[in-house]
Amino acid sequence: MKVLLLNGPNLATLGRRQPEIYGSTTLAEIVEAVAGRLAARSIELDHLQSNHEGALIDRLERVDYDVVIINPGALAHTSYALFDALVACQRPVIEVHLTDIAAREKWRRRSVTARAAKELITGRGWRGYLDAADLAGNLAADLTG
Amino acid sequence: MKVLLLNGPNLATLGRRQPEIYGSTTLAEIVEAVAGRLAARSIELDHLQSNHEGALIDRLERVDYDVVIINPGALAHTSYALFDALVACQRPVIEVHLTDIAAREKWRRRSVTARAAKELITGRGWRGYLDAADLAGNLAADLTG
Amino acid sequence: MKVLLLNGPNLATLGRRQPEIYGSTTLAEIVEAVAGRLAARSIELDHLQSNHEGALIDRLERVDYDVVIINPGALAHTSYALFDALVACQRPVIEVHLTDIAAREKWRRRSVTARAAKELITGRGWRGYLDAADLAGNLAADLTG
Amino acid sequence: MKVLLLNGPNLATLGRRQPEIYGSTTLAEIVEAVAGRLAARSIELDHLQSNHEGALIDRLERVDYDVVIINPGALAHTSYALFDALVACQRPVIEVHLTDIAAREKWRRRSVTARAAKELITGRGWRGYLDAADLAGNLAADLTG
Amino acid sequence: MKVLLLNGPNLATLGRRQPEIYGSTTLAEIVEAVAGRLAARSIELDHLQSNHEGALIDRLERVDYDVVIINPGALAHTSYALFDALVACQRPVIEVHLTDIAAREKWRRRSVTARAAKELITGRGWRGYLDAADLAGNLAADLTG
Amino acid sequence: MKVLLLNGPNLATLGRRQPEIYGSTTLAEIVEAVAGRLAARSIELDHLQSNHEGALIDRLERVDYDVVIINPGALAHTSYALFDALVACQRPVIEVHLTDIAAREKWRRRSVTARAAKELITGRGWRGYLDAADLAGNLAADLTG
Amino acid sequence: MKVLLLNGPNLATLGRRQPEIYGSTTLAEIVEAVAGRLAARSIELDHLQSNHEGALIDRLERVDYDVVIINPGALAHTSYALFDALVACQRPVIEVHLTDIAAREKWRRRSVTARAAKELITGRGWRGYLDAADLAGNLAADLTG
Amino acid sequence: MKVLLLNGPNLATLGRRQPEIYGSTTLAEIVEAVAGRLAARSIELDHLQSNHEGALIDRLERVDYDVVIINPGALAHTSYALFDALVACQRPVIEVHLTDIAAREKWRRRSVTARAAKELITGRGWRGYLDAADLAGNLAADLTG
Amino acid sequence: MKVLLLNGPNLATLGRRQPEIYGSTTLAEIVEAVAGRLAARSIELDHLQSNHEGALIDRLERVDYDVVIINPGALAHTSYALFDALVACQRPVIEVHLTDIAAREKWRRRSVTARAAKELITGRGWRGYLDAADLAGNLAADLTG
Amino acid sequence: MKVLLLNGPNLATLGRRQPEIYGSTTLAEIVEAVAGRLAARSIELDHLQSNHEGALIDRLERVDYDVVIINPGALAHTSYALFDALVACQRPVIEVHLTDIAAREKWRRRSVTARAAKELITGRGWRGYLDAADLAGNLAADLTG
Amino acid sequence: MKVLLLNGPNLATLGRRQPEIYGSTTLAEIVEAVAGRLAARSIELDHLQSNHEGALIDRLERVDYDVVIINPGALAHTSYALFDALVACQRPVIEVHLTDIAAREKWRRRSVTARAAKELITGRGWRGYLDAADLAGNLAADLTG
Amino acid sequence: MKVLLLNGPNLATLGRRQPEIYGSTTLAEIVEAVAGRLAARSIELDHLQSNHEGALIDRLERVDYDVVIINPGALAHTSYALFDALVACQRPVIEVHLTDIAAREKWRRRSVTARAAKELITGRGWRGYLDAADLAGNLAADLTG
Repeated sequence: MKVLLLNGPNLATLGRRQPEIYGSTTLAEIVEAVAGRLAARSIELDHLQSNHEGALIDRLERVDYDVVIINPGALAHTSYALFDALVACQRPVIEVHLTDIAAREKWRRRSVTARAAKELITGRGWRGYLDAADLAGNLAADLTG
Repeated sequence: MKVLLLNGPNLATLGRRQPEIYGSTTLAEIVEAVAGRLAARSIELDHLQSNHEGALIDRLERVDYDVVIINPGALAHTSYALFDALVACQRPVIEVHLTDIAAREKWRRRSVTARAAKELITGRGWRGYLDAADLAGNLAADLTG
Repeated sequence: MKVLLLNGPNLATLGRRQPEIYGSTTLAEIVEAVAGRLAARSIELDHLQSNHEGALIDRLERVDYDVVIINPGALAHTSYALFDALVACQRPVIEVHLTDIAAREKWRRRSVTARAAKELITGRGWRGYLDAADLAGNLAADLTG
Repeated sequence: MKVLLLNGPNLATLGRRQPEIYGSTTLAEIVEAVAGRLAARSIELDHLQSNHEGALIDRLERVDYDVVIINPGALAHTSYALFDALVACQRPVIEVHLTDIAAREKWRRRSVTARAAKELITGRGWRGYLDAADLAGNLAADLTG
Repeated sequence: MKVLLLNGPNLATLGRRQPEIYGSTTLAEIVEAVAGRLAARSIELDHLQSNHEGALIDRLERVDYDVVIINPGALAHTSYALFDALVACQRPVIEVHLTDIAAREKWRRRSVTARAAKELITGRGWRGYLDAADLAGNLAADLTG
Repeated sequence: MKVLLLNGPNLATLGRRQPEIYGSTTLAEIVEAVAGRLAARSIELDHLQSNHEGALIDRLERVDYDVVIINPGALAHTSYALFDALVACQRPVIEVHLTDIAAREKWRRRSVTARAAKELITGRGWRGYLDAADLAGNLAADLTG
Repeated sequence: MKVLLLNGPNLATLGRRQPEIYGSTTLAEIVEAVAGRLAARSIELDHLQSNHEGALIDRLERVDYDVVIINPGALAHTSYALFDALVACQRPVIEVHLTDIAAREKWRRRSVTARAAKELITGRGWRGYLDAADLAGNLAADLTG
Repeated sequence: MKVLLLNGPNLATLGRRQPEIYGSTTLAEIVEAVAGRLAARSIELDHLQSNHEGALIDRLERVDYDVVIINPGALAHTSYALFDALVACQRPVIEVHLTDIAAREKWRRRSVTARAAKELITGRGWRGYLDAADLAGNLAADLTG
Repeated sequence: MKVLLLNGPNLATLGRRQPEIYGSTTLAEIVEAVAGRLAARSIELDHLQSNHEGALIDRLERVDYDVVIINPGALAHTSYALFDALVACQRPVIEVHLTDIAAREKWRRRSVTARAAKELITGRGWRGYLDAADLAGNLAADLTG
Repeated sequence: MKVLLLNGPNLATLGRRQPEIYGSTTLAEIVEAVAGRLAARSIELDHLQSNHEGALIDRLERVDYDVVIINPGALAHTSYALFDALVACQRPVIEVHLTDIAAREKWRRRSVTARAAKELITGRGWRGYLDAADLAGNLAADLTG
Repeated sequence: MKVLLLNGPNLATLGRRQPEIYGSTTLAEIVEAVAGRLAARSIELDHLQSNHEGALIDRLERVDYDVVIINPGALAHTSYALFDALVACQRPVIEVHLTDIAAREKWRRRSVTARAAKELITGRGWRGYLDAADLAGNLAADLTG
Repeated sequence: MKVLLLNGPNLATLGRRQPEIYGSTTLAEIVEAVAGRLAARSIELDHLQSNHEGALIDRLERVDYDVVIINPGALAHTSYALFDALVACQRPVIEVHLTDIAAREKWRRRSVTARAAKELITGRGWRGYLDAADLAGNLAADLTG
């Protein structure tokens, strides 16, 4: 059983830039915490961060995973190509946003990719990734159960 | 530690009407499953289903709970009064929808009340309530932790 | 064979307030006329007027009728919860408006609940209820025929 | 007492094309059924089907009828000229649509001509014409009464 | 020098229907008055009234005139085909409306065909046709001058 | 001479929840202050707070008052039924909002019920109720004068 | 303590033009009545009517007043410059309209300047100025109190 | 009998700036030609050009004329105050634009002031003023006739 | 195997009017070229040009053809009746426009009828008809193949 | 003579994912069929599939081809950069979509890139590529002819 | 070589009102700094501040300058008359705003006058005027160069 | 002190494609001129052109510069990811467009990235880059000053 964790543009600098908005936990720390949470349920984790929409789609195309957790960054608001890739992989998808996108600029309120997602987690900061890990575990249990 | 579970208009007949859309699990069965899931983490559950917007607000006003799980039914799309009540209670809120509201009629795509929610779970059928229970547990852990 | 007649907010005062818009026939007189019309075809009538959206949904939930005639009043323009209840009852619905809603304020032109209705009767004053009774008879004939 | 029944573009092939949407009853059978229904109340029927908007307006201009039943076909959604003609004839108008126009493509939801109509019947298939005939009888009774 | 006067749908009954909106002067009286006005400047008049959009376009296609005066009726608001025909004839066009279209229903405020017109006369009742005749005379003077 | 003071959803907790937005004066204190202000002009006060739209309409239906002061809460933005009730009572209406609704979320800027009001007072906090009491006195003076 | 009363374009002819809409009280009579009302509370009044947006802003710039009462006329719907001036003067503002702007043409429903106002009074005719004077008195009392 | 000719912002430089759009006839030449045309029908002419909206309204307020011809320049698209002044003067209004406003930028297509006009003349260059003079003559004839 | 070629309003004058936009090839020349292209693949051609929407629908109703090539002219942008007829004939449809409709006026960008078409060819001038003939050949090959 | 065939994001998996929507023909099979079709007219084919918008633009920049056939996938709906590149290459462009984009989700109906295309082929499945090859041949013949 | 510096409504009080938004530098200080900067490149400066749109247009009409620097204040968002004047003067225009207009209220985001400007400088406070002076120098160099 | 100059999609071919729109100066010539201008103020220049949005973001992420000058090409209109990267780098940004984006297609009028910019320079052709260099110098002076 394997979970694919994808992080989109500008998330590499998490914890180092604008911590008053995005918090001070780094991406490496988040990935480690998620891996630990999933390991406890014997689920493997694969991670990719990229600023290239095409690279994220390339990765989704290689379907060697059972569940996708994705924080698409700003691509969430515009990328129909990423949306198509999420649908095409035919795996359950959980979308995470660090901030409450409904409470920020207007264009952040619309998530194109979220329509391909079964669950949407927003405004929980880095803890939202842990919530996603737990839901991924539930989804995996349903799939194997 | 107590979770308040609220179900809005037309959810009393769950499992009996239009099972091809909403599934055949009844509301009583869902409430029992949620209560069981929460009991395992020593969390109490209080439940109210009502077709009256005012009754749901009356219940929220009495703040004897730590987390709210709510499926507002069609009130999700129009009730600013319910939104105000969810904000006013100053407790974390998890909103659940049985179906994938983004994939149905246009007016179902907009959720007024979701803006008061920390997490939004859609399209998972009755299992979405269990996911909500798990997330409520996480939230409770953060609060007590 | 039974018809359920529902009247929404502000219809209790029919015939007494703003007769220049809504006419001077009272609700009691209308209900009696409809009952007479249906009795001639051996169809029973049940009536409820309420200013509470929830009370109308509660009544619809108890499915002891074969056809619904409803004048939702201003709820017609906003209540998706009432719309859901009309769909969920799985009975043919006839919606009546006393005035020609297309010829008044803009917001009156849109009827949310009418989408759940098989027939829509507007601008016929209290006689619209009699027309509805005749159509309910036709619908009943189709159902039993 | 005479009723004018008008059928607009593409209705000549009723019952032969796309029966899964429009049913298999032909226009001739419908006209005959309506004529029978009206004859029972001693009301005469005149019928015209045309694919030409101008021909329908020409017919309305010759005011030798007391009530109009019209299925404008797709002209319902665009023809302000037909709307003007229906208003100008100063006779009560009943508009019929075979399908539930609110449940199909977005542009079918708007009926320009319906604003000139006292009653609107949709989603009842060919039986909607019979309902229209009954309501035309009621209207005639009001006019003569 | 010849002026073509075109009148669109529903204008044949001018003076006989809804005189409180459109006045009691008949179309024949208007045509006669316009012909008189133009004759005084030695300009010939050709007139066509039709409820058929196609017939108006057919007439415009035969370019045996120097100026067009047109009251397109409700076609003004929807007919891009008529607009194209007015442009294609490459003659100056004067559009007349009996009523003040800006002061009536919203859809009457938009005139598709007026974009092909050099002058627009509204809200002057039948006298607007005389104004149009005078302006047609000016235009003719410019053309010959 | 009697004034009816109505307070809609979520106003029962005034002064106790979110005081940084709504102030710390309780509803009881406001009602007492308004009653005092009106008593000085020999005007009686009747008060009702309810989270139920239907209950507010029920109260308006019983017309034993001369002027209405209403803070509809979030119902201001959606309730056409309440609007109809305010119009139907045929008494002058003064609408009060604690905050400046134009300066908050977009949906708060539109007040459906305000169209039935003669005066609109916003952004004055609890003092706005006193202003409303003074204007109610002026209206009463006009009515009796 | 001084109140500045400003009246915008077209208000000089008040009472003489279109009295069926705006009433027959002249501007001079209104200013005198307002001055009287304020004098009773020992408040001074300064008045300016101008058809020039710039002149109104020039006057606001000279901040020798404590409260502003303004009827901006049609500038209410378009003048962001006046809005900026009202905000910049940092004094409480009461906006008055003679008619009920919500019940007239659509563009009259939007008031740009009202967003700078603490109170909005509409549809009370010339008496609305007196109401404004009373509220100005209340505001002054709050400021001095 | 007197005609008031008003020209709004930027029209003083007519004939000298951007002649490829507006032509090379100067405003003085136009005023002279209009005066000549009207003198032939014994009608007096008064002219004012101003870049100040307020000055145009001031002039309209002094009602010593029988008909208004106005080219409001860009104020046509925004000035509700000018619109109100044109309505308030209660004289027939003819609006002139040198260019075909429908064929230029989008915002030029909408004329706020034209709603107060009985006739609208566009795209005729300086000759449009002569047409306006002729129509003013017709209007005057109707008024005196 | 037969192809029906339909040409809508204003196409009869092709090659003679506005050649700078539509080119100088006449309709007769185009029809001959298309017929030749199809004859080479043993496909028959039937052609109708009409300015009457109804006449085009009448022709479509008589289903004696296998593929439709249509240039609806301006009806493309408004005629839902033609759209319905194209769908109802249940034959593959190829829509042709001489010019690039996306690059002209805004209303030309929307083609109502194109939704019933399998292929859309624009901006190729008269050569687009030849392309359509080739594609019609491909479609025919698929049908017979 | 050379044709460049470009395929955008998510088209690499054609024939293997969601065959019920996109068919079971693989991209390799399509490229081979197109190459064969073009070879018959002595036209060379170059092909690139990429999930990276930038890579497609890089390829277009190297102008070693005479005609472009492109299926931009979801980039069709958002990529103005691709649109600019298609315009900048100054070669005729044919856009292909496997499905009928007008009949799916709303955002699929708008193609940004199609505005740079001379021909648009939709809803023909893999056969649309062959149609495109034939049209490319016609375009090449025009260029060389 | 001369630069005309124009400042619109409400800018006279710069540095004295709302310094937390607009800064504490006065308009006199800014004008002096700009004059100094330009003098270093031997360019003369003329300055006008006015709250009257007409006065700004009057000044632009007298074309005795080579470049315009303008801060139109709130007129930027509504004044098509000012836009026309800026275009008519046929001199390069640089528009300055003290604050970042894209980051404030929605209506501030749209600048009507900026379309007549070659350069737009926002969000740099009073330093933006110096930047404008430098760019004016560059423009002047291009003109004389 | 270092300036980063970024050029987005399709700018590599500057000076060679569509010179009638974008001019005939090549990108290499522009970069050289900018470098010279900055060297005169002892400021270093780093340059990157890429057709890949991700590559531009990768470069911005490595924060070894003090000011950013960017011509995002068409990405300006859609890329929220680039916007986020520009904000995240926390350096002043100057955006340059060769053409006057307000005067071209509608979608070019909106710049998503410009909201992250302190200055916006449009319609100055290649000279706009020099203006940007001068403003970058001013910004640097402020930073070091």
